[in-house]
Amino acid sequence: VEKAVEKMRVSLLGAGAWGTTIGIKLSGAGHDVKLWEINLQRLEKAALTRKLPKVLPGIRIPKELFYTAGISEAIDGADILVLAVPCQALRPTLKKLPKGFKPPKLVASLIKGIDAKQGQRPSQIWEEFFGTHPVTVLSGPSIALEVVKGHPTAVVAAGNDKIQVKRIQEIFSLDNLRVYRSNDVVGVELGGALKNVITIACGVAEGLGAGTNTRAALLSRGLAEITRLGEALGAKPRTFAGLAGWGDLVTTAWNPASRNHRVGLGLAQGKALEAILDEIGMVAEGVETCRIARKLGKMHKVEMPITEATYRVLFLKAEPQKEIARLLSRPLKEEVW
Amino acid sequence: VEKAVEKMRVSLLGAGAWGTTIGIKLSGAGHDVKLWEINLQRLEKAALTRKLPKVLPGIRIPKELFYTAGISEAIDGADILVLAVPCQALRPTLKKLPKGFKPPKLVASLIKGIDAKQGQRPSQIWEEFFGTHPVTVLSGPSIALEVVKGHPTAVVAAGNDKIQVKRIQEIFSLDNLRVYRSNDVVGVELGGALKNVITIACGVAEGLGAGTNTRAALLSRGLAEITRLGEALGAKPRTFAGLAGWGDLVTTAWNPASRNHRVGLGLAQGKALEAILDEIGMVAEGVETCRIARKLGKMHKVEMPITEATYRVLFLKAEPQKEIARLLSRPLKEEVW
Repeated sequence: VEKAVEKMRVSLLGAGAWGTTIGIKLSGAGHDVKLWEINLQRLEKAALTRKLPKVLPGIRIPKELFYTAGISEAIDGADILVLAVPCQALRPTLKKLPKGFKPPKLVASLIKGIDAKQGQRPSQIWEEFFGTHPVTVLSGPSIALEVVKGHPTAVVAAGNDKIQVKRIQEIFSLDNLRVYRSNDVVGVELGGALKNVITIACGVAEGLGAGTNTRAALLSRGLAEITRLGEALGAKPRTFAGLAGWGDLVTTAWNPASRNHRVGLGLAQGKALEAILDEIGMVAEGVETCRIARKLGKMHKVEMPITEATYRVLFLKAEPQKEIARLLSRPLKEEVW
Repeated sequence: VEKAVEKMRVSLLGAGAWGTTIGIKLSGAGHDVKLWEINLQRLEKAALTRKLPKVLPGIRIPKELFYTAGISEAIDGADILVLAVPCQALRPTLKKLPKGFKPPKLVASLIKGIDAKQGQRPSQIWEEFFGTHPVTVLSGPSIALEVVKGHPTAVVAAGNDKIQVKRIQEIFSLDNLRVYRSNDVVGVELGGALKNVITIACGVAEGLGAGTNTRAALLSRGLAEITRLGEALGAKPRTFAGLAGWGDLVTTAWNPASRNHRVGLGLAQGKALEAILDEIGMVAEGVETCRIARKLGKMHKVEMPITEATYRVLFLKAEPQKEIARLLSRPLKEEVW
């Protein structure tokens, strides 16, 4: 049923687990893939060893993937630009692009997260640099290692340019990767970012010995509150009930290897935030997202009790047990959204 | 914050895991609880041993819970009638009520499921007997053993009579049990029934070695299709994104002890349905619900690919692996609802 996709020159910025995975899949589908990454040391190591043992254990990166340390070389002649850097690295990355750079027709963002200071979504940061040049965002339950191993995975592609979204859908619909279209950019981007806050809360509960009922209640009420915030910011509520919302939320909450999940578990054990992040050794997006989500909630007068409790545990040294108890002793009410 | 609730006479029909659990909680809150159950042998055994070792291992049923084999005695003088029988036993149970029985003001249904033949919801079956006498339905992620052990749990109470719903909310808001109100009876009842079909599908996928991404995709797309069916039947879509929808779905899909989950795992291992049900030794509501959900989907022209695939595996001896592959090779499309 799918249309055959002609061979394309793909420029991939960001060579972490997800970017590399998509690079491997696109290269496997016959496209020319160039990979660039801001951290030169990591880039060289990956190019040399053809492995990312920490995040993609057991996976060999095929020699067809071309690594380059020069961003100009990476983007030269690209038919499609794929952004796969960590969210907080997007601005520095776009700043590195040569002056007068004209993006190719097709631009895709694989970035999950929101700006830690101002709360912009990745596509909004893109707009700061390239105005109305359209970008399609992809999100959904997609643990990289599973995708690279060929486990069936479904994601959502959202954008304002319908033709671009359809093209991106075709290009990224690789074996065992299924792409659904959406026109809710705001919802798809916020889902992938805000779910990390709820994942931390769920990790805290799990670390305190919570049962399945309790974790399901936290996830449900957590979804309700990030849906409320999303709506206030212009998202469609149904997006949060879909792949990019609860699909992604349940995956992270299921996955004990998830960094945000591990932050929650650590907090429940009484560890200091700094010590936990040190142990993980990587960015846990949810920590900063919690701060900004709380701020946005206050700005838009959206009640976010789980985000608030998570914030108190993360930053105000509140006792996890007390915060969970506080959530449960709130006045009886309707299941509001 | 909660209003104090005066001592009430509770008549509980159905002494399985969930009915007994609610009985224990209500009795613990000082109410007089009488328990009746259609299966006399089981009733006598529970009354004598004060245990339900198979479904509530390690739990002692307090002597304050009064078991009676006479339904007339059970309902005599009740302030509140609680229905906790398996869904297919509701009609036979209501038929056993003495002629001219006038239900008390407060009636609550804890029943999950839909009629296997005609697809009526429990509150519709109630209506067949008692017309407009209001009933409040409770549903949500509530594994009985966790509730009886005091794990924080949140459920939804829905009904058309606002005053009754508020009273039921007050009465059932017991320690660590949190009750949210809703006015979507249809959605709350359908959520608890239809999720069992998706749970079977998810169990099949898990049994075939599916990863987290795949299971999350099945759950997300499964929620989308039961939401579509729910809407066609008059439910509010948001209910399915809440406690009684995806909250309950994720709990069952998480819980390897869930009967519907086990049905899916067994099917993936190539076992015959009869053999699996024999092994489980109890009703797995999802099996018959799948049949009726598919029928309702066809009647209302709702596309339900996961229900269809589950139906084919359950009843047409279709190969699980092929059905999962078929789901993934469907034409590319929008994330429709």
